[in-house]
Amino acid sequence: MTELAAVKAALKTQAVETPSWAYGNSGTRFKVFAQQGVPRDPYEKLADAAQVHEFTGVAPTVALHIPWDKVEDYGALAKYAEERGLKLGTINSNTFQDDAFKLGSICHADPAVRRKALDHLLECVDIMDATGSRDLKLWFADGTNYPGQDDIRERQDRLAEGLAEVYDRLGDDQRMLLEYKLFEPAFYTTDVPDWGTAYAHCLKLGEKAQVVVDTGHHAPGTNIEFIVATLLRERKLGGFDFNSRFYADDDLMVGAADPFQLFRILYEVSRGGGFTAGVAFMLDQCHNIEAKIPAIIRSVMNVQEATAKALLVDREALAVAQREGDVLGANAVLMDAYNTDVRPLLGEVREELGLDPDPMGAYRRSGWAEKIVEERVGGTQAGWGA
Amino acid sequence: MTELAAVKAALKTQAVETPSWAYGNSGTRFKVFAQQGVPRDPYEKLADAAQVHEFTGVAPTVALHIPWDKVEDYGALAKYAEERGLKLGTINSNTFQDDAFKLGSICHADPAVRRKALDHLLECVDIMDATGSRDLKLWFADGTNYPGQDDIRERQDRLAEGLAEVYDRLGDDQRMLLEYKLFEPAFYTTDVPDWGTAYAHCLKLGEKAQVVVDTGHHAPGTNIEFIVATLLRERKLGGFDFNSRFYADDDLMVGAADPFQLFRILYEVSRGGGFTAGVAFMLDQCHNIEAKIPAIIRSVMNVQEATAKALLVDREALAVAQREGDVLGANAVLMDAYNTDVRPLLGEVREELGLDPDPMGAYRRSGWAEKIVEERVGGTQAGWGA
Amino acid sequence: MTELAAVKAALKTQAVETPSWAYGNSGTRFKVFAQQGVPRDPYEKLADAAQVHEFTGVAPTVALHIPWDKVEDYGALAKYAEERGLKLGTINSNTFQDDAFKLGSICHADPAVRRKALDHLLECVDIMDATGSRDLKLWFADGTNYPGQDDIRERQDRLAEGLAEVYDRLGDDQRMLLEYKLFEPAFYTTDVPDWGTAYAHCLKLGEKAQVVVDTGHHAPGTNIEFIVATLLRERKLGGFDFNSRFYADDDLMVGAADPFQLFRILYEVSRGGGFTAGVAFMLDQCHNIEAKIPAIIRSVMNVQEATAKALLVDREALAVAQREGDVLGANAVLMDAYNTDVRPLLGEVREELGLDPDPMGAYRRSGWAEKIVEERVGGTQAGWGA
Amino acid sequence: MTELAAVKAALKTQAVETPSWAYGNSGTRFKVFAQQGVPRDPYEKLADAAQVHEFTGVAPTVALHIPWDKVEDYGALAKYAEERGLKLGTINSNTFQDDAFKLGSICHADPAVRRKALDHLLECVDIMDATGSRDLKLWFADGTNYPGQDDIRERQDRLAEGLAEVYDRLGDDQRMLLEYKLFEPAFYTTDVPDWGTAYAHCLKLGEKAQVVVDTGHHAPGTNIEFIVATLLRERKLGGFDFNSRFYADDDLMVGAADPFQLFRILYEVSRGGGFTAGVAFMLDQCHNIEAKIPAIIRSVMNVQEATAKALLVDREALAVAQREGDVLGANAVLMDAYNTDVRPLLGEVREELGLDPDPMGAYRRSGWAEKIVEERVGGTQAGWGA
Repeated sequence: MTELAAVKAALKTQAVETPSWAYGNSGTRFKVFAQQGVPRDPYEKLADAAQVHEFTGVAPTVALHIPWDKVEDYGALAKYAEERGLKLGTINSNTFQDDAFKLGSICHADPAVRRKALDHLLECVDIMDATGSRDLKLWFADGTNYPGQDDIRERQDRLAEGLAEVYDRLGDDQRMLLEYKLFEPAFYTTDVPDWGTAYAHCLKLGEKAQVVVDTGHHAPGTNIEFIVATLLRERKLGGFDFNSRFYADDDLMVGAADPFQLFRILYEVSRGGGFTAGVAFMLDQCHNIEAKIPAIIRSVMNVQEATAKALLVDREALAVAQREGDVLGANAVLMDAYNTDVRPLLGEVREELGLDPDPMGAYRRSGWAEKIVEERVGGTQAGWGA
Repeated sequence: MTELAAVKAALKTQAVETPSWAYGNSGTRFKVFAQQGVPRDPYEKLADAAQVHEFTGVAPTVALHIPWDKVEDYGALAKYAEERGLKLGTINSNTFQDDAFKLGSICHADPAVRRKALDHLLECVDIMDATGSRDLKLWFADGTNYPGQDDIRERQDRLAEGLAEVYDRLGDDQRMLLEYKLFEPAFYTTDVPDWGTAYAHCLKLGEKAQVVVDTGHHAPGTNIEFIVATLLRERKLGGFDFNSRFYADDDLMVGAADPFQLFRILYEVSRGGGFTAGVAFMLDQCHNIEAKIPAIIRSVMNVQEATAKALLVDREALAVAQREGDVLGANAVLMDAYNTDVRPLLGEVREELGLDPDPMGAYRRSGWAEKIVEERVGGTQAGWGA
Repeated sequence: MTELAAVKAALKTQAVETPSWAYGNSGTRFKVFAQQGVPRDPYEKLADAAQVHEFTGVAPTVALHIPWDKVEDYGALAKYAEERGLKLGTINSNTFQDDAFKLGSICHADPAVRRKALDHLLECVDIMDATGSRDLKLWFADGTNYPGQDDIRERQDRLAEGLAEVYDRLGDDQRMLLEYKLFEPAFYTTDVPDWGTAYAHCLKLGEKAQVVVDTGHHAPGTNIEFIVATLLRERKLGGFDFNSRFYADDDLMVGAADPFQLFRILYEVSRGGGFTAGVAFMLDQCHNIEAKIPAIIRSVMNVQEATAKALLVDREALAVAQREGDVLGANAVLMDAYNTDVRPLLGEVREELGLDPDPMGAYRRSGWAEKIVEERVGGTQAGWGA
Repeated sequence: MTELAAVKAALKTQAVETPSWAYGNSGTRFKVFAQQGVPRDPYEKLADAAQVHEFTGVAPTVALHIPWDKVEDYGALAKYAEERGLKLGTINSNTFQDDAFKLGSICHADPAVRRKALDHLLECVDIMDATGSRDLKLWFADGTNYPGQDDIRERQDRLAEGLAEVYDRLGDDQRMLLEYKLFEPAFYTTDVPDWGTAYAHCLKLGEKAQVVVDTGHHAPGTNIEFIVATLLRERKLGGFDFNSRFYADDDLMVGAADPFQLFRILYEVSRGGGFTAGVAFMLDQCHNIEAKIPAIIRSVMNVQEATAKALLVDREALAVAQREGDVLGANAVLMDAYNTDVRPLLGEVREELGLDPDPMGAYRRSGWAEKIVEERVGGTQAGWGA
């Protein structure tokens, strides 16, 4: 058994970034069900995120989405965050909601549209300078719905050109994280559909360009942990967008659909040194029907539990069984860790950090849920603005 | 070769129902891109639908969606339709957009919510009485996002109870068409996920309850034509919602993603007598980025072309090859029909009907597209209202 | 918390049938890797199965496959089983390996081939009479590889006719379990591809015809526990063929690919009364690269662990949360049970049954593995004979 | 319309390599159905392949599989081929059938097994020297069935090391084509599951290492033509293994399951210059239930027809529509080519080449099928030897 003290130490330094937009309203193309108490501006989102960090201790940063989280004074926003124990995190760009982007953004056939998209991305880097964010996350809704609609290859050329311009604008300590997605909102092909495409572009761009793995963005049957292991081996794993899915990009709470898969992914992170290699661990989820703050707390805890199990894998015993070709023995070593109930261990970790061992209960007892329902009256609730 | 005259006769009597909502704006959860000239009320939708019928000759009815197409006077609406050579068709219910329906409608745990949903469905039958519609199409967004969220089995009980009440309300010449859908907007399980579930309910309800096959609502790898053949054999195929998909419920133009599949489906319809058995052939699509009226014309033509090919299958030669176990020969008979270019044949059919052989060109030349952009200024464009 | 005593009692009476063929060699179309010590006849298979039961206490019956397990004297075979604490279980038919069955068996276009297949099935019922088996399991490899190859609908007619003849031959206490499978070895369509088809046939046949759910036989994204809940509600769930899959019909050890899914399935069994409703719990797996007996012990334990977790679900708390629409709370009740480490509980159960709490270790220490390698020299190892 | 003469010229120089093993017996794990007249040695396979070339005119090379096609004297084999108008083509290695390879070949944990596998691969290059083959095709069955079974990352290290050794052995005019496959026979993960992995390895190896796209080796929903376009853009597309699939790696006749997809793939080949860039066009199929030689003729014709349609795409009109953002117009240009019946055109091409316009009929009339049934009596039919 790996030494428990080391496991605890690792768990105490874990950091899961939460996304500002998960605190706002979201939904499907059929309906967005608004919830009471939802934030109306980036400040209120941060206030909610601070609750998640207060009770879990491992959610110290918040990802922003531009323009949804645009403010006049990012310094003031950063200060507001710091006062609540938070830092501003990854800047997420949006090249899919402007009317000009109906047929794409930096892959669009029209240079004027591409320029518009690029200007937005460069503005995002400006914002990173202001917020002190390390990472620019690039997810492109670009793609086509119908065969022939546009030239697949030229779109790659345009993509490469656009990415290069943004890359050149990055500061020394800044990175771009390129996200891939199999489908939606483009249905015939997206322009960055898989890790291979993201990897090929990042490779040409340079070290500051890294691939981000969104756990919901793969074809059925894809072995995600293989991709994680491979990207770590190639030093190209920039981060995760955690969520879970049963079918497509369901954006359910991470760990809700397949907790064993999450464990396997985090085992490969652990085995590949990913916990100490600058990999960003972010949530990217939608809480369409469940209460948002508790859903995020739960998600953070799910990541913690899967991480604890991954850290508990007896690596030496595993290596012996693997070397000996003991298929069942090796599998059993992994399953022993997975089958362990790590909730008591995490309770201890929290108590040692001065936290309540039960984050969900502590949040519930805090009265915050009632408070925001009562206080956040009037105004326009935050959402995707779709 | 099947006699060409019979094929032409069948093609001339074909009828494809177009959905009122396809003329309005639609999109994904990321963005709805509004288009110019989009209808602002049910009357304008009918005016657009009349164009489709005018140029194709085989789109004589329009499906309505309640409440999106609610009007004060359905008689007036029907009269407006008739003046344009149309009839009002299937009534589609909506039990997914009221705030009460966040966790379901007729499957909801709360009887008050179920009552609300049922009242809506009964109102839809009232509307059918007013419009003279034969079919009530029931698609339920009901389902759950998380394991444990609700009791799968009790939801079936509630579903059965609700369907029975609606069934009892149907008039002698009215039917209910129960649609199934694998996922979305519910992500863990929907309450009618597959044809088996829809079939089991319809069987208990009686002859007026029939299954509707939406071509986009299946798991990857599902053989849809098998389902069609089976439902026809069981006398339980009520109709189709045509569209096409590459991944999930993409709602692309029918025939755009897999024209061979569409042909195979229509072959099973033909072989099972479905063209003369009261099966409803409806489109249910979203034209998120392409011009709507021409997209619908194109879709109708795609159905026509696949139908023509299906009708051209040399059934006798096929039967001989099948009986002899001639795998390649039997397949070749089918492929011969599929590989035929039926566009000249359909051009002839149209000319014999007094239509332009080129519906797309005729529509383009008609000036309607420009006219609606010019005239439909102000007001609120129709859409899903999500 | 459900009372622990009741949970233990249920776990003690659990019965998982193991399949004779899992003790023999198996592989893929690419290669069958033979293993040392593999049984050479049905008697040796039973001897191995007795080991599984000896160490787990919950594997008292063994499924036979005809003709792989054909013997002269089934009475002698049954006696041999009984002497080792076993009973003969389900009879599995084989209508896919005779050269005549290249294009199908009871769905074949040629009546002579259908007759041959039916005679085999009737012979299987004769064997059931001799072995005292309750269940005849029918899995048909029937289907087509190419569109047009045969008539989908006529094949259904032939299937219905064949099933009816077998049904009529069943004794009062005998059942037929109809298995469905999406694909393989037929690749275009199988003749019983989904639960709906199996259900429709069983419904017409009568109460003795029941559906069997093989956990590996579904399209990607299918919610299997929904099917289980639905079939239990319809009183048509005859049994399970347990195994697990990552992609297609991988036939890996049950619980190896998605233990959370197995838990959800067994929760629906529990919730629907399936543990006391005559449902057959069978393994149907291939141990292509791992040692067979320990793989089967492990699989039985995986079913036990998932069952224990399913039984530990706090049904009352769950019902309250579900009724209140508390999405996160209801999900949490389910996850609390799933996250419990039930291995200590199962250790207790075993000790109370007079067994070693560690079946894997006990088997390893028993020396059986070495014994069979040493003794089973010469002869022909059992396998699929493909 | 592209000039017809150019299209014809391109079609006349097309070359589709047929695989020796497709002429032998094959099947599924359930059963291999032997066929009459099947070749008993590599010479007879070549004799059959010569028939395919004789009637299609575009199948001038035959891929060999080692050791299935091992002969004493490759010079003699090559001469035998040449006498029949054929050349020996790609050498396919086999690292999946030796008993040593149960847990992998060049990715195996044991260096001795890796050595054995590498020696086989080096022997294959020796054979290439003897046969004058350009390409070594590497498909590895390597992978794991159970999480934890082996270390994913170390297996990549071993793979890289092994590939490098083989690469160094290649002659100046030789290439290695690395094939990827999502699953089977490994079910948890394969060691080269996707194009990204193959690409990353080939990139490090150098120009002589290229990726081969087997059209049956992808997850559901994967856009294969995107991969083709991307690999061509990266100058890393080495070749195709053509076949078709409905579900998994069904290995049906190319074009049988989704002819529109085949067209789209070949359009991207055409658009990316792949017809003149050294890309190898090979079949890799199994004819489990259909007659083998006609199935291969049919497959070659399917590739021809899809190629003809791809070449007929009006590239200029397409570019205009794409540039204008005319979604429907651009799609229509592509569909116009697809909907064209190119069989008359191909008939002309064949007649201009001095061939019968109807290859299937000509083969049937040739009497070869009867001749081989009559003559090939006794001996052991060729197959996979699994």
